[in-house]
Amino acid sequence: MHQLVREHFSPAFDMKELNDSAVIDFVEGIHKLAFTTDSYVVSPLFFPGGNIGDLAVNGTVNDLSVVGARPLYLTAGFIIEEGFPLGDLKLVLSSMAQAAHTAGIRIVAGDTKVVDRGKGDGLFINTSGIGAVPDNIYFGPRNIRTGDRIIISGLMGNHGVAVLSERNGLAFNPPVLSDTAPLNGLVKLMTRFTGGIKMMRDPTRGGVATTLKEIAMESGCCITIMENMLPVSGGVKGACDLLGLDPLYIANEGILIAVVSPDAADSLAGEMRAHPLGKDAAVIGEVTGCEERSGGMVVLKTLIGGTRIVDMLAGEQLPRIC
Amino acid sequence: MHQLVREHFSPAFDMKELNDSAVIDFVEGIHKLAFTTDSYVVSPLFFPGGNIGDLAVNGTVNDLSVVGARPLYLTAGFIIEEGFPLGDLKLVLSSMAQAAHTAGIRIVAGDTKVVDRGKGDGLFINTSGIGAVPDNIYFGPRNIRTGDRIIISGLMGNHGVAVLSERNGLAFNPPVLSDTAPLNGLVKLMTRFTGGIKMMRDPTRGGVATTLKEIAMESGCCITIMENMLPVSGGVKGACDLLGLDPLYIANEGILIAVVSPDAADSLAGEMRAHPLGKDAAVIGEVTGCEERSGGMVVLKTLIGGTRIVDMLAGEQLPRIC
Repeated sequence: MHQLVREHFSPAFDMKELNDSAVIDFVEGIHKLAFTTDSYVVSPLFFPGGNIGDLAVNGTVNDLSVVGARPLYLTAGFIIEEGFPLGDLKLVLSSMAQAAHTAGIRIVAGDTKVVDRGKGDGLFINTSGIGAVPDNIYFGPRNIRTGDRIIISGLMGNHGVAVLSERNGLAFNPPVLSDTAPLNGLVKLMTRFTGGIKMMRDPTRGGVATTLKEIAMESGCCITIMENMLPVSGGVKGACDLLGLDPLYIANEGILIAVVSPDAADSLAGEMRAHPLGKDAAVIGEVTGCEERSGGMVVLKTLIGGTRIVDMLAGEQLPRIC
Repeated sequence: MHQLVREHFSPAFDMKELNDSAVIDFVEGIHKLAFTTDSYVVSPLFFPGGNIGDLAVNGTVNDLSVVGARPLYLTAGFIIEEGFPLGDLKLVLSSMAQAAHTAGIRIVAGDTKVVDRGKGDGLFINTSGIGAVPDNIYFGPRNIRTGDRIIISGLMGNHGVAVLSERNGLAFNPPVLSDTAPLNGLVKLMTRFTGGIKMMRDPTRGGVATTLKEIAMESGCCITIMENMLPVSGGVKGACDLLGLDPLYIANEGILIAVVSPDAADSLAGEMRAHPLGKDAAVIGEVTGCEERSGGMVVLKTLIGGTRIVDMLAGEQLPRIC
């Protein structure tokens, strides 16, 4: 174990040892910290556009980013099944290091555990992260008002379709790639441009539909979205038709949903389009019925002019998508 | 998943939802933070004296405590195998809540993932924690000098023997109980009593021997310990004889090793004995040969007057002990 850590984990993360506990000097003037955790059990471990390593780093960076925090430090915990190929482990570690570098976050402590063959599934990774929240930022469902607009930062469904296609041996041409990416740069641009952001969330497991439903329930408002405004690539649309899936429910790993004041919405979406991760940003709907704070409904106006209630996925979600 | 979280996880940890990301108001004047992570894969999940839940909370509290931090906040990530009994999950969650309460730490964010049957082993838990390090505390191997004393805070080997006995269906009379416990109270007492503490570490996986060897290697000093000073209960001694194990290499979850200045050692050990978790505290050895910072050897003076080199465990450690 010591050898494994010394030869592979520590160099990947530029540590002398894989620290149990990191002591971090802290910038003064930080009054609010964000603290988050996520375990990653994605299957398969490698998929078009990414692997469990960059997914685990980006996912935690994004959980911090959408609460308005500047991501600072990460820990990484590995549960390795006996017999897991060392070559695969090295690939994952190098993806993590690269993703951390891209996001500008430091992996400061880690842990490895090995379980016997048949008691795991290759590799599970937990990442936890801390970030500093600027004093002037408070995102939350209580900020939401009737008339607020819903912005999505990019195309829906790429991550889920990429994982499912790899899992099922399907090849699309061109291939659908996971959108796994760190959103902190985009969020920084957004919060600098306007104070009109009420809350943000990244639509991972359960997709855009589940995230909107959560926002509606937590705010007690209703949300109406327009099907014709939802950004979906041709590849994802085709794959969803083939597999009988709804892109609204498919997991994403590099987009966010923002609820913003009506006056800021269009110009903010315009600004976002100048960022590589925001180039397909769109205003997709608006908030209604906040007066009674007893709503929580999400309605989709369909292409053919009908309306459909959008609920959380009942029954089985796509398992092990992240 | 939403229902599971709402009905079981959130109430256990007193959260409305199981937060993805917690935003924490921070006390001013904190300049150093400690940040740590650990995944727990102990098998079996329930053992005499504890279960994976309190183990996961106490383990992370202890990793923070031994770097001198006051533990503040915890996150918890759960990887649950499909079919894991809900009753067991509830027991684990309630143990975690109780352990957090005892340690005075708050669980502020969490995550649950479910893996298919046969791809996990019941339940794995990751906990990550942050703590505040007082400005006047810097623990580290560079502080260590020739003549420093080694203190152990309690009896060796209880956790490992408790888990092994449960795993192998052995019953001791009286039973050997895991020592899982939060060390932050004891550490607070120690750091208030003296500034003479050079570094601390909790001897978990690999036991006291491995921890001493790590301290020796990191400091470049040598360490000599006296076998007749090592505190081991009769139960652990008997079990080790029976199972062919050496208590020096057995995992502990509620004791610490401290390296302290020679003038402070005896009085500090005396103070520690007034604390329930320090009642068997003992000075077990001393540091030698720091002059060249090229040592790293640990030597045991045996009961019969011989000397034995103490090395890290070569080959297979006891698997899944934490």
